[in-house]
Amino acid sequence: MSQGKLLYAQSGGVTAVINATAAAVIDTARRRKVPVLAARNGIIGALREDLIDTSKETAAAIKALRQTPGGAFGSCRFKLKSLEQDRARYERLIAVLKAHDVRWFLYNGGNDSADTSLKISQIARELGYPVHVIGVPKTVDNDLAVTDCCPGFGSVAKYTAVSVAEASLDVESMCASSTKVFIVEVMGRHAGWIAAAGGLAARKAGDPPHLILFPEVAFDEDAFLARVKATVERVGYCTVVASEGLKNAAGQFLAEAGTRDAFGHAQLGGVAPVLAQLVKQKLGYKYHWALPDYLQRSARHLASKTDAEQAWAVGKAAVEYALAGRNAVMPVIVRISDAPYRWKIEPAPLERVANHEKKLPKGYISRDGYGITAAARRYLEPLIRGEDPPKYLRDGLPDYVRLKNAPVRRKLPRYDIAD
Amino acid sequence: MSQGKLLYAQSGGVTAVINATAAAVIDTARRRKVPVLAARNGIIGALREDLIDTSKETAAAIKALRQTPGGAFGSCRFKLKSLEQDRARYERLIAVLKAHDVRWFLYNGGNDSADTSLKISQIARELGYPVHVIGVPKTVDNDLAVTDCCPGFGSVAKYTAVSVAEASLDVESMCASSTKVFIVEVMGRHAGWIAAAGGLAARKAGDPPHLILFPEVAFDEDAFLARVKATVERVGYCTVVASEGLKNAAGQFLAEAGTRDAFGHAQLGGVAPVLAQLVKQKLGYKYHWALPDYLQRSARHLASKTDAEQAWAVGKAAVEYALAGRNAVMPVIVRISDAPYRWKIEPAPLERVANHEKKLPKGYISRDGYGITAAARRYLEPLIRGEDPPKYLRDGLPDYVRLKNAPVRRKLPRYDIAD
Repeated sequence: MSQGKLLYAQSGGVTAVINATAAAVIDTARRRKVPVLAARNGIIGALREDLIDTSKETAAAIKALRQTPGGAFGSCRFKLKSLEQDRARYERLIAVLKAHDVRWFLYNGGNDSADTSLKISQIARELGYPVHVIGVPKTVDNDLAVTDCCPGFGSVAKYTAVSVAEASLDVESMCASSTKVFIVEVMGRHAGWIAAAGGLAARKAGDPPHLILFPEVAFDEDAFLARVKATVERVGYCTVVASEGLKNAAGQFLAEAGTRDAFGHAQLGGVAPVLAQLVKQKLGYKYHWALPDYLQRSARHLASKTDAEQAWAVGKAAVEYALAGRNAVMPVIVRISDAPYRWKIEPAPLERVANHEKKLPKGYISRDGYGITAAARRYLEPLIRGEDPPKYLRDGLPDYVRLKNAPVRRKLPRYDIAD
Repeated sequence: MSQGKLLYAQSGGVTAVINATAAAVIDTARRRKVPVLAARNGIIGALREDLIDTSKETAAAIKALRQTPGGAFGSCRFKLKSLEQDRARYERLIAVLKAHDVRWFLYNGGNDSADTSLKISQIARELGYPVHVIGVPKTVDNDLAVTDCCPGFGSVAKYTAVSVAEASLDVESMCASSTKVFIVEVMGRHAGWIAAAGGLAARKAGDPPHLILFPEVAFDEDAFLARVKATVERVGYCTVVASEGLKNAAGQFLAEAGTRDAFGHAQLGGVAPVLAQLVKQKLGYKYHWALPDYLQRSARHLASKTDAEQAWAVGKAAVEYALAGRNAVMPVIVRISDAPYRWKIEPAPLERVANHEKKLPKGYISRDGYGITAAARRYLEPLIRGEDPPKYLRDGLPDYVRLKNAPVRRKLPRYDIAD
């Protein structure tokens, strides 16, 4: 017991491969004989002293965890404020770490989590509590700074590219007498990384998707309709990938600028139905639209092998960095070369990661604003490469695991915090 | 040339495996040295004499066709009326078959196509033209009569069950501080077969999906909200599978009974946003919803092995029946036993198939109306069993093929028909 424990927590929106990172953390720590605790529902569980003893999980369960989507210990949307504003909470957190002899804290999340990790390392130093804090990258949005790409993104990118290719084949076969415009809405409220990945479905010029609508490019209704019309007239149908973050020239989200119901509420749902209505009213084409929502980020059955390997690699490196005495760093993915695609893991200071945002480079969007460039393709394509299907059971479903998540006995007074 | 040709046409909504049937037809006919023509865009192409010479396709292309979603020769939504009403069209069709020495006509579709096939065989006999007409089963809706199940259904069923399982793991991990109700809308306007398949995601009682809303059960708002609330209070979240065909007690589609926009148009989009709005307004829970639309029926990447095998088997049998001189029959799937799951193909007279509809048995819906029974599970589970992943290329995308679809030279005067 005197050797200390490692605490792992998941934060923010989950992904198809965040549990691969969790499995790598547990596997690597077990090999080093370091006990691993997990916080239930992320930082909320750490504050409440609602901890999980991962030693109760079998090796088979951890193996299945590697291929299970979602966040096995629970995640949360909860941001700690500045050290000044939220001092009591940071102090509580240190008290919990101390009570459970936690010497290594691994926080698996995006930008906010990198910031929180950094602050925890600062207050721990200030309070003289020796804990090594490591941020571990995760986000489907791919907007984390420093790292070349972010575990979780490659799999949603692959899901999007494959789904666009498949649905386009469907639309193409029916367009002579049925649906002519198909719109698929993808995640990415602030950056068009996932929308750009939809462009990978096109192996050659003219292949679907015919139009990508990026949050980075203000929506121009007339130009959009003209492009849809020209595409339908040329190839018989038009596949559109639309980012949920699409905005009009005034900077309003298109999804919110739509019609309102009798109570004045903004019309529910996303940008796809708004675009579909526009196509119907102005061009008269029969349309269909899809909104895969959580299906896209939890589609572990179609994970990218690159992504699954990188998710594992950052988990493994995080434990190694922590045990080697590093502090306030994040294992990041460094791209060595595009072709052949080679990468390695390196530690990056959390200061460089926290509160920055990696935007989609302007050079990744084609000049007309509706497609991706060769540079984008060079960057994106290796990230969806390879398959890593889960093991399926006799019943035709993947062997996904729900862990026991056995609670650790509390040692401190109760601490209330709203969900 | 004197030996005659076989004509194959695809009809109605396409599926993830209809091209597996097409590949089986071509492969089987090639082994028997019978030339195969295909109609471009289904019966429309046959009427227009817009035919495709499949002999121009390589063996590799036909192999890739087996794993390509959509309808490779084009399909259509076009129903021929009765022999009396549409006599000129039926006669034109026979003229086209005659001009190209078509002795075997295989029509791959659902209920309407079985009816059309039957009528074509009748008019051919009346006109003294010797052609063997075989209906080949296909529909994601699983509503075709006589056959135990229908190629196309097993794969959409597997996609739905796996997606529900995956998205539920996602929601479960975030529900303490984020989304509590997740609604996924599935196809099936008239029967709840696909909605029922969503129930397979639950391996044991209490697993998601927690509620299934069938078109067969009138929507009861109060009861639904009470169930959602009780589920969220018990397990923290609630996954709902809703059929697009859900109706209220007055028999109106819920998707159309929703709010209207400023122009009085029914709110776009399906039943999922209507249910989500209800949950938000009446219970105040944070929600998300997904509408996979065409993604569900084109998801060849997640095809059921059972389904892919049956799609191949009906194509192969159709050619064998035709060449053996059978007429006005359909190869149907006969279930020999549930456990072990065993099946065979048998010919069924088209009279027995055409214009009937296989409804979801009452005994497949649990007494409370929100789930599936053990009998439903016994029927459905074998249909999603096994995986048949497509081959993927280096770029991370499946090796889907677009055929050459080389046109056959026309021999008849032009025949106009609107799309």
